[in-house]
Amino acid sequence: MLPPMTVQNMFAGDPLDRAAALRRDDDWVRAQMAAPTTRFLILRDMLIPVTGENPLSLVWGTRDDVPEASEFVLLGLEEGEARFAVAADATPGHEGYADLRMIASQLPADAAATASYARALLSWHVNAQFCPRCGGPTVLRAAGGSRRCQQCEASHHPRIEPVVIMLVTNGTRCLLGSRTAGPEGRYSTLAGFLEPGETIEEAVRREVWEESGVVVGDVRYHSSQPWPFPSNLMIGCMAEALTTDAEADGDELADARWFTRAEVRPILGQPQGAFPIFLPPPTAIAHQLIKTWLDAGD
Amino acid sequence: MLPPMTVQNMFAGDPLDRAAALRRDDDWVRAQMAAPTTRFLILRDMLIPVTGENPLSLVWGTRDDVPEASEFVLLGLEEGEARFAVAADATPGHEGYADLRMIASQLPADAAATASYARALLSWHVNAQFCPRCGGPTVLRAAGGSRRCQQCEASHHPRIEPVVIMLVTNGTRCLLGSRTAGPEGRYSTLAGFLEPGETIEEAVRREVWEESGVVVGDVRYHSSQPWPFPSNLMIGCMAEALTTDAEADGDELADARWFTRAEVRPILGQPQGAFPIFLPPPTAIAHQLIKTWLDAGD
Repeated sequence: MLPPMTVQNMFAGDPLDRAAALRRDDDWVRAQMAAPTTRFLILRDMLIPVTGENPLSLVWGTRDDVPEASEFVLLGLEEGEARFAVAADATPGHEGYADLRMIASQLPADAAATASYARALLSWHVNAQFCPRCGGPTVLRAAGGSRRCQQCEASHHPRIEPVVIMLVTNGTRCLLGSRTAGPEGRYSTLAGFLEPGETIEEAVRREVWEESGVVVGDVRYHSSQPWPFPSNLMIGCMAEALTTDAEADGDELADARWFTRAEVRPILGQPQGAFPIFLPPPTAIAHQLIKTWLDAGD
Repeated sequence: MLPPMTVQNMFAGDPLDRAAALRRDDDWVRAQMAAPTTRFLILRDMLIPVTGENPLSLVWGTRDDVPEASEFVLLGLEEGEARFAVAADATPGHEGYADLRMIASQLPADAAATASYARALLSWHVNAQFCPRCGGPTVLRAAGGSRRCQQCEASHHPRIEPVVIMLVTNGTRCLLGSRTAGPEGRYSTLAGFLEPGETIEEAVRREVWEESGVVVGDVRYHSSQPWPFPSNLMIGCMAEALTTDAEADGDELADARWFTRAEVRPILGQPQGAFPIFLPPPTAIAHQLIKTWLDAGD
């Protein structure tokens, strides 16, 4: 048996009880929507309501704050009290609302995780108003756990896109890439969407080969992270290179280069601008993969 | 660093080169569709064309076999020759066509994997003819790597549903469940769909708790499996129970019970009917999880 990993990545650790059995009971859900202790997280244009500083807090509204004709999505129960999320239109200036990607590290870990769940689930509802099978309109069911087509009656469940993200290593060096779409000097682990018909390990090998021409042998799972932009599951792995000629594909990656621990150690955790290159912040699973490799030592 | 797992699950090991860069080049794709060496796997009502026995083989057609107005989905290249998949309507009697779930273990492993990829990808295309965002009609792009909405121009990618499947153990015993929807006497590992906003480990703990009331601590990744019914990614884990009172939820599970290795060993791999209970066949990742635990010994 392998020892378990103990990393807690950002956006993990949502403390709410998702109440899977209760949320299918429409009467119970309606009672929760009307209960005086129930609170509502109202996202506007997918921005998160926050207040305070160091740390920030989420702003939970009451039923009176929810715009009419909104869809109510149950996040879960906090000590028996219901918590819903609602997607609303943007307000001018976005006063009091923030991009979760920008402010996640300023929230307590459990609040960041709850906001992440709300954003992922609401994004799906907003983009699943029609049935992909027949084009008919869909309606929310099970307090947001699914949607049903009013035309062909197909059920649809929240979509999650699995992404493999891997630190490729070869003895004392690791492979980092700079994306064509990213800012200059930003290097990170390679990553890509898993495709139908492949395992996690096969997706890791294919993506590394496509992006850098490096052949990967052994792949080891490290940890995972929900990434709500809009709703990815980041599957973090360590991957052992069998070849070392690395050439960026020029399409996804602009550069792919091997780094020693001595080169990476002073840079990891430093802000953009401190060095000619910069690496992902601790909120990213890529950071945790690199840190695990640094900590293992030569 | 953890040692990698070496299990090769059924439906893993598709040998085709997916040619990610080339499949976005429409001229190249059209040339492949017309090339005399190109072959086509024509599924009818999602059944797979097979021939022979012990082992079965896939039946690859030529361009002339493809019904008019079909969509062509590139599976990849086999020694430089293109292989496409096509979804067609059922023929009366299904002569020469089989349900992949029933015949997978009679195919060579690489053919089963290719058929699995074809079935998963075609299922998605058949069920993604409309845009879930606006309801407009979609068209195939990138030789089947994506679809685009003709109304709002949104891009859509093949859907994969991640499922956690875990063997829960407590010292010398493992927890197996019998599903309300399954045949009498069939026991297997617990499993369920991963939800937005959770890690793999959190999904394992939530599912086990919901279905059996058992609290799980450590979770260790074992291996993964593409499961093309219609397009799941099975994420296999070993999970350590912190509590032992197991009670089936009565909804998904009819029974949840602890078994010793001495009880499981004679039953694993035996067909339905040989014992009062039967376990998943070697084609299922659940079988591999149980086998790993048996092999580890008390």
